[in-house]
Amino acid sequence: MIVRDRPHGLKLLFVLRGSVLPRIAWQLAASTALAIAVTLAHGVVFERKITLTTVPFALIGLALAIFLGFRNNAAYDRYWEARKLWGDLGLRARSFARQVQTLLHFDAPVGPQDADDPRHRLILRTIAFASALRHQLRGTDPLPDMRRLLSAGDQEGFAAAACGTDYLLRRNGDALGLLLRTKRLDPPVAADLDQSLTGLAAAAVGCERIRNTPMPFAYTLLLHRTAWLYCFLLPFGLVDTVGFMTPFVVVIVAYTFFGLAALGDEIEDPFGLSDHHLPLDALCRDIERHLLEALGSASLPEALAPVDSKLT
Amino acid sequence: MIVRDRPHGLKLLFVLRGSVLPRIAWQLAASTALAIAVTLAHGVVFERKITLTTVPFALIGLALAIFLGFRNNAAYDRYWEARKLWGDLGLRARSFARQVQTLLHFDAPVGPQDADDPRHRLILRTIAFASALRHQLRGTDPLPDMRRLLSAGDQEGFAAAACGTDYLLRRNGDALGLLLRTKRLDPPVAADLDQSLTGLAAAAVGCERIRNTPMPFAYTLLLHRTAWLYCFLLPFGLVDTVGFMTPFVVVIVAYTFFGLAALGDEIEDPFGLSDHHLPLDALCRDIERHLLEALGSASLPEALAPVDSKLT
Amino acid sequence: MIVRDRPHGLKLLFVLRGSVLPRIAWQLAASTALAIAVTLAHGVVFERKITLTTVPFALIGLALAIFLGFRNNAAYDRYWEARKLWGDLGLRARSFARQVQTLLHFDAPVGPQDADDPRHRLILRTIAFASALRHQLRGTDPLPDMRRLLSAGDQEGFAAAACGTDYLLRRNGDALGLLLRTKRLDPPVAADLDQSLTGLAAAAVGCERIRNTPMPFAYTLLLHRTAWLYCFLLPFGLVDTVGFMTPFVVVIVAYTFFGLAALGDEIEDPFGLSDHHLPLDALCRDIERHLLEALGSASLPEALAPVDSKLT
Amino acid sequence: MIVRDRPHGLKLLFVLRGSVLPRIAWQLAASTALAIAVTLAHGVVFERKITLTTVPFALIGLALAIFLGFRNNAAYDRYWEARKLWGDLGLRARSFARQVQTLLHFDAPVGPQDADDPRHRLILRTIAFASALRHQLRGTDPLPDMRRLLSAGDQEGFAAAACGTDYLLRRNGDALGLLLRTKRLDPPVAADLDQSLTGLAAAAVGCERIRNTPMPFAYTLLLHRTAWLYCFLLPFGLVDTVGFMTPFVVVIVAYTFFGLAALGDEIEDPFGLSDHHLPLDALCRDIERHLLEALGSASLPEALAPVDSKLT
Amino acid sequence: MIVRDRPHGLKLLFVLRGSVLPRIAWQLAASTALAIAVTLAHGVVFERKITLTTVPFALIGLALAIFLGFRNNAAYDRYWEARKLWGDLGLRARSFARQVQTLLHFDAPVGPQDADDPRHRLILRTIAFASALRHQLRGTDPLPDMRRLLSAGDQEGFAAAACGTDYLLRRNGDALGLLLRTKRLDPPVAADLDQSLTGLAAAAVGCERIRNTPMPFAYTLLLHRTAWLYCFLLPFGLVDTVGFMTPFVVVIVAYTFFGLAALGDEIEDPFGLSDHHLPLDALCRDIERHLLEALGSASLPEALAPVDSKLT
Repeated sequence: MIVRDRPHGLKLLFVLRGSVLPRIAWQLAASTALAIAVTLAHGVVFERKITLTTVPFALIGLALAIFLGFRNNAAYDRYWEARKLWGDLGLRARSFARQVQTLLHFDAPVGPQDADDPRHRLILRTIAFASALRHQLRGTDPLPDMRRLLSAGDQEGFAAAACGTDYLLRRNGDALGLLLRTKRLDPPVAADLDQSLTGLAAAAVGCERIRNTPMPFAYTLLLHRTAWLYCFLLPFGLVDTVGFMTPFVVVIVAYTFFGLAALGDEIEDPFGLSDHHLPLDALCRDIERHLLEALGSASLPEALAPVDSKLT
Repeated sequence: MIVRDRPHGLKLLFVLRGSVLPRIAWQLAASTALAIAVTLAHGVVFERKITLTTVPFALIGLALAIFLGFRNNAAYDRYWEARKLWGDLGLRARSFARQVQTLLHFDAPVGPQDADDPRHRLILRTIAFASALRHQLRGTDPLPDMRRLLSAGDQEGFAAAACGTDYLLRRNGDALGLLLRTKRLDPPVAADLDQSLTGLAAAAVGCERIRNTPMPFAYTLLLHRTAWLYCFLLPFGLVDTVGFMTPFVVVIVAYTFFGLAALGDEIEDPFGLSDHHLPLDALCRDIERHLLEALGSASLPEALAPVDSKLT
Repeated sequence: MIVRDRPHGLKLLFVLRGSVLPRIAWQLAASTALAIAVTLAHGVVFERKITLTTVPFALIGLALAIFLGFRNNAAYDRYWEARKLWGDLGLRARSFARQVQTLLHFDAPVGPQDADDPRHRLILRTIAFASALRHQLRGTDPLPDMRRLLSAGDQEGFAAAACGTDYLLRRNGDALGLLLRTKRLDPPVAADLDQSLTGLAAAAVGCERIRNTPMPFAYTLLLHRTAWLYCFLLPFGLVDTVGFMTPFVVVIVAYTFFGLAALGDEIEDPFGLSDHHLPLDALCRDIERHLLEALGSASLPEALAPVDSKLT
Repeated sequence: MIVRDRPHGLKLLFVLRGSVLPRIAWQLAASTALAIAVTLAHGVVFERKITLTTVPFALIGLALAIFLGFRNNAAYDRYWEARKLWGDLGLRARSFARQVQTLLHFDAPVGPQDADDPRHRLILRTIAFASALRHQLRGTDPLPDMRRLLSAGDQEGFAAAACGTDYLLRRNGDALGLLLRTKRLDPPVAADLDQSLTGLAAAAVGCERIRNTPMPFAYTLLLHRTAWLYCFLLPFGLVDTVGFMTPFVVVIVAYTFFGLAALGDEIEDPFGLSDHHLPLDALCRDIERHLLEALGSASLPEALAPVDSKLT
Repeated sequence: MIVRDRPHGLKLLFVLRGSVLPRIAWQLAASTALAIAVTLAHGVVFERKITLTTVPFALIGLALAIFLGFRNNAAYDRYWEARKLWGDLGLRARSFARQVQTLLHFDAPVGPQDADDPRHRLILRTIAFASALRHQLRGTDPLPDMRRLLSAGDQEGFAAAACGTDYLLRRNGDALGLLLRTKRLDPPVAADLDQSLTGLAAAAVGCERIRNTPMPFAYTLLLHRTAWLYCFLLPFGLVDTVGFMTPFVVVIVAYTFFGLAALGDEIEDPFGLSDHHLPLDALCRDIERHLLEALGSASLPEALAPVDSKLT
């Protein structure tokens, strides 16, 4: 995620960091080159004047506007829903830690040293859950983080599990069940804590949904095809009225249409590491800080800060 | 569901797999043929010049844009809601399995071999529920899957039931009731597990709603009629200004409008087997894998992979 | 609700069943007649040429597009929310029946013959609730259905009640309270079942809201007035450029605008019996079938099938 | 709220009741007068021809369309959310009455005469809550209604409280707490009833939010300014092409734009007494009728009927 | 937040308070200056006529409309969601106070003097929570407010905590746990109160999400760039048709586009102190008043009133 203030004045026009320009550079170059060629040839191809006026572009533009508007809203909704799911994950993790520390029948809250206390494990497994989900969504290796956070037995079980996040929730469930059967936990409160586990699972299932179900492929195809045809035919339509300014107009139009399309492609699946993806590293670190503090830890890891205006 | 990367460059224009083109081929052919005929006749029909300028198309286009935009949003919302419902089904199934394995008063979790343990049956019936819902939505035969997953008695009851999915939930409810009355289950926890059953039922009811309630028929009619009239009259409006390029413009416009309409038709009821429908087979397999793992099974069935870029 | 496949090819243009055409026939006829008159008079009224070019129609069309788009979305949202509420009603009814059959402290589930068992009554009252709500929304007489489903005492109470649906829920609440006080029902489970009753009430309250609160009247007025003015002035604007094709263009434009407006009027309050209203009869029958099956009934009433492509 | 059927035919054009026309009468008059003056002067001001063609109006119209569409959707969302909140209030009130009458440990439901029974007071305070909220939102005096519904002690407390609605909920909470401590209420059921109180509070908080947080003031300003400039400049743009019909076109355009803006102003804060505000009196009466019936009262107050097509 | 009635008539055009004009003054000045220069030069730059007709502006305007419409909706959604979250915070705070005062096993509600009563502390910590969240979102110093509201021990813990809001919720959780273990609180009611704490946490997490996750930076960039290019090129497109009125038209168009963009920038992150941000001070004061009243306090602090039409 790019974190920076909006530049002002002329700088606004020349900022590259966080812009979508690099992604669409060759598309822009190609359409500009064609526009220059068409302008120089006055719209004549093989000695035949291409009689496209601006009329067809108003008609196609209508369809393109519907596509882009729809696509853009849908992609941003996915982006924002993904962020909400991670917010919910943080909420459930914090609440679960609070519930574990306060509502069980123990004499005192657990501290950061009591590594064998079931409550200590419940909280660390919850940190591990967030981390494991992040690795699952990004396709990276979760084991280093797991080694840091889990007991030896849990590490083994995690490595053997087909779905690591689900394994961790089941292990937390086991611990709750044991606390329930040993009367450390009242049944209504057990149901309450179990709802927190279900809340964590809901966040994971929601993220998997966004990750695994792209927007229908035909939309992407239809949108990109129409944008291409539009931008490559545009010089023929403009050259008679706009003359030598044609390439200039084409580059602006192409920038807006290709830029919007490219941005939609990027934020549709927002779990990666590109400029406009969600800062899952920072969100996991934030969860870890909150839960370690709930555990009474005195030395929390630093919150992540943007590097070169970018938070990963 | 089509699962593939977006093609780049010129390939983008000629990809057919996952495109909506085959569905609208004859419509495109018909409107193009007409456009060629009109262009050759210079817009004269029966020795009478058809005086449609481009003005009417701006006016009709406005209405068409409203229709297409609305239709498209509504259809995609149905598609995405259906996907959410299946995500919720997966969540509820996983949570129910976790609750069954952890919150009951048994000494140890149930294993994959204890086929007569009530918990084993609760979990397998939940797998069967997802599978039965899939078959119900697709109109296919659920019995082979049921034979694989249910006890003989349940198979019989399932086959006799008018609503198989509801039967399975009631059977799970019976089992919970028995566990409650034999003190294996505390009342507040019983209410918690019952909520999971209600959550499963909610997913089923939601899918039935989308399956059985199409968008009002008059919308479809109004939209397709307007699109047809628009595309078939368009050559008369264009031929005087655009000349020999008329068929080319018509084919682009028709492609976008017919394509968008066809895509809406397809994803409005997304439970079938066509290119842009939801991969219910893969989702059911995913649920099965998660629940068998919760049951401690060592050998899980493989996750489904796309065949020729398509996941069913 | 119209249930039929979309017709293809030329049939598409001439289908009347399920079309909005009959509702707007005279409006179309009136605007077409005016368009013909204007065309024959070349836009001259009382020897004065009406100098409307197409420019004003682009401006008014903008406002009209906002109205129609907004109106249409809002009307469809009401339609779809109403359908969701009925889906929720079905879910709550099914879940309540499952809870009643499984979570109480009885030795066996109740059967279809035990008409005096409190559980039998709970389930039949729930069927009656759905039916009573349907009659309330449609303004039809609920008593025949109530006679079929309720005990004599309940029938009397229902007939005397100002709000029949609320009466049935209170009677079910009474029965739950008695079961609670006689220890047939654990308190947490009682709260769970009470939530199902609240869920049923929520569906009823939501339907009443849609039924009793139309969209603000001024919108309807503003929309219809603008559409009328637009379509009746249009021939004056078109006749100079489009010539003898004017009536043809006017009829298409009027069809789309009046059609969209009429469709919005129809689905805004979707509980009636017209072509695009919700099939409440079929939904109630579906609930009855599910609940009778939960009661163990062997002979279920048939599901309703469309008559002449229409489900009521 | 205006409750009437949509008028048909010519009557449609001349209905004033429920129209937004009276609110925008002088704006329409002013812009029409200006349009007439401009038409008579052929667009010449101080011997200088104002060279506005229709081009700028397409550009400004674009921005205006975005404003009006957005504003309108947001205002209607507020209107509809307010209605939903009142529906929810009704639901919670009815459910609370049902819970009070059925789930407590008393031998019989409370009747309308047992004014000292805690359940009687719980229900009447809930009626008073709806009424107090209505008065709070409308800025009217709640005391007459409170005298009718509350005990002397409650009346005093209500009058002294800074927030009357919250006072009533706390008093109901006190009563529930007493019932809980005297074992008339099981703890899980107490939590269930407490959720109903929270539901009532949620409806009140939601209404306060809509009441106290208008849409950002700059939107309103931007929208009205643009609409004014547009409508007052329009005659200069039209007079050359549309000629003597200019005032006629201007009045239609101004009617749609000013009308839409005025309607948005009206329904944005829908708790007042104007034509398109919510009928809070009728909704409160409806709640009173339902709750008195739950109390077993034989003589219910009449439901409110529209006076001159208007329900307050 | 600006709280004032909409001005009428000519005043509407000249109001500055609450307008977005000051924010975009130099942008307007720059584009107007350029427009004047272009008009005087008749669109000739370096002796070369810039042949931009109005055609390109319709095309770019389409993209700009999509951007502005989308951006505006998304920004307003964030604004309104933030307001809803604060409404929810108020609801949860009021409900928690009511639950604390009514559902625990004490003989009488706690009064404003019993500063050592755990219930007194629970309520004051909830007031402190709202205040701490406000300071966190605005980056201001929470300690003065904390000194006013918390015990010495809590103040110390708060100052040491990385996340003060979370600390306060955990302290409230500790108190609930103690009440639970000392039988002052029934387990199901404890779960109910714990849900209120989770509700408070949810509001905080939601606000942090809006605060920390701006809209993707590339959108902002794309939007502002397109708006700048559009407004600065516009005079070249208009000068041939609109003549000496060009600067006048440009200033109107620029006002609407820049104004809408600036407003979106402002309300996207609505927790600050500018004109259209949420009045967090007033909302916190409102919560404090409600909770002190629940505590029985006789002297409530005044509700905040707007200063110079502005509520902070």
